[in-house]
Amino acid sequence: MSKNVVVTGGNRGIGLGLVNELLKNDQVGKVFATTRSPSNSPDLLSITDARLVVVEMDADCDDSINRAVQQVTNSVGSSGIDFLINNAGVLLPIDINAPINRKKANRNFEVNCVATMAVTYAFKELLKAGARKAGHSQVVNISSALGSISLSWGSVPPRHFTAYNMSKAALNMYTKTIGTEWKADGIRATAICPGWVKTEMGTDDAELTVEQSTSSIVSTIFKLGEANSGLFYNHNFEAYTW
Amino acid sequence: MSKNVVVTGGNRGIGLGLVNELLKNDQVGKVFATTRSPSNSPDLLSITDARLVVVEMDADCDDSINRAVQQVTNSVGSSGIDFLINNAGVLLPIDINAPINRKKANRNFEVNCVATMAVTYAFKELLKAGARKAGHSQVVNISSALGSISLSWGSVPPRHFTAYNMSKAALNMYTKTIGTEWKADGIRATAICPGWVKTEMGTDDAELTVEQSTSSIVSTIFKLGEANSGLFYNHNFEAYTW
Ligand SMILES: NC(=O)c1ccc[n+]([C@@H]2O[C@H](COP(=O)([O-])OP(=O)(O)OC[C@H]3O[C@@H](n4cnc5c(N)ncnc54)[C@H](OP(=O)(O)O)[C@@H]3O)[C@@H](O)[C@H]2O)c1
Ligand SMILES: NC(=O)c1ccc[n+]([C@@H]2O[C@H](COP(=O)([O-])OP(=O)(O)OC[C@H]3O[C@@H](n4cnc5c(N)ncnc54)[C@H](OP(=O)(O)O)[C@@H]3O)[C@@H](O)[C@H]2O)c1
Repeated sequence: MSKNVVVTGGNRGIGLGLVNELLKNDQVGKVFATTRSPSNSPDLLSITDARLVVVEMDADCDDSINRAVQQVTNSVGSSGIDFLINNAGVLLPIDINAPINRKKANRNFEVNCVATMAVTYAFKELLKAGARKAGHSQVVNISSALGSISLSWGSVPPRHFTAYNMSKAALNMYTKTIGTEWKADGIRATAICPGWVKTEMGTDDAELTVEQSTSSIVSTIFKLGEANSGLFYNHNFEAYTW
Repeated sequence: MSKNVVVTGGNRGIGLGLVNELLKNDQVGKVFATTRSPSNSPDLLSITDARLVVVEMDADCDDSINRAVQQVTNSVGSSGIDFLINNAGVLLPIDINAPINRKKANRNFEVNCVATMAVTYAFKELLKAGARKAGHSQVVNISSALGSISLSWGSVPPRHFTAYNMSKAALNMYTKTIGTEWKADGIRATAICPGWVKTEMGTDDAELTVEQSTSSIVSTIFKLGEANSGLFYNHNFEAYTW
């Protein structure tokens, strides 16, 4: 049975890499790649695989999310979706050893946490439909090792990650929450760290190419079982502590 | 050497209880109880102990925080402060199984995380001064067992705790971050869960009276050593996992 996948922030970076890797996999049916601006997403538009559907979605706007859900619903019908990969995210640095820039600090939570919750709720019916078809469906929240409280070692000056790290710890709590509570609907949720990846966010200093990270993530998400719901792994399926 | 303590949100609930318990302790020098409205804080104003100083502070407003810091600085001089107890907080319920109320969800992060960071940074010089005097000083962030990702079991309908829980997990990340990084300045930071306490937030159904919780918290914070910095305990000094 082929798998329908939604990837948010599919226009660049890790999201675009996930789209490319998913399309290499013949278990995959349709791939819905969301982007805030389809016309400014040349890399997505250049993909010729007919399984790709480019969907406009701004995660900050409920109307935009609802239009995206409607577009996916029209395309998949009662099959629903098998995976929702919440990849869209921001990293706004704030220096904790200076007056706190509240606006920037808050923005990390608005996008990485609250917008992700809004998107996930909006796709819940499609995830339930996917679970009715296939027995289960899977939310994948793209988290970060930097969001592991146990592994954290400070604010990482001069990169000033603190508010971002806090937002990813909060996202992990959301993953644990729905990964526990939504099992009754057949919906699983798992947090995945992509590693340190060469993207605009990760910078060129990063360890992994987008292809290295995303080929590994795609292989991992196909291995996720019920026992992995509400838990946290890296791209190679190694468990992380919270 | 007597200890100077700042308690935020000292006008009611657990904050007021902490003020009362601290004043029972003769190791305690001055207690600075912050409140958004001194004139509307009858319980604080009725306390006659001369060691209590009521300080106006709205944690959402940087000017207000800076005025509060100035008032404390004028009072303690080069002795600085020994404890900053970040107790002020909010719980705004949001239902994750309905369209997300973004404004309410965000508010949990704005107050419990971002305002707490702003307050903590603003008091950092006074904490450093306290550490120069006494060898160390201590930030106590009032967290919650609900902010433990490992212990969490869902959104707790019908109380809809998810965004609050996420904000406390994020606060725990902040505690770990400064509790690690600020050790070099002699500043420790520890997360403490007060238990489930009969306050406006905790409701009358709660297990503990304010006095039971806060007497236990005050006894615990006097036992905190360097090894407890960057970690998480309940009011009885039992360790919690993140
Ligand atoms: N790179 C790393 O080393 C690394 C490490 C750990 C975790 N991560 C996580 O991996 C995910 C992807 O990161 P990346 O490195 O690929 O970052 P990136 O290159 O900066 O790409 C971010 C993506 O998120 C989208 N996005 C941001 N805010 C959005 C919003 N409000 N609504 C809709 N889309 C939004 C962006 O769209 P626009 O193009 O429209 O801005 C873009 O598609 C993030 O969640 C990040 O936290 C990355
Ligand atoms: N009660 C429980 O069972 C429980 C359990 C775990 C953790 N906690 C935590 O314990 C702490 C105290 O809770 P509580 O039960 O005492 O709650 P509460 O009775 O609702 O009191 C909250 C206090 O925080 C202050 N506050 C809220 N927002 C503020 C802001 N923006 N600026 C300044 N002050 C602000 C309030 O001031 P105003 O009077 O001006 O509103 C009040 O003094 C919170 O951090 C809470 O999360 C409580």
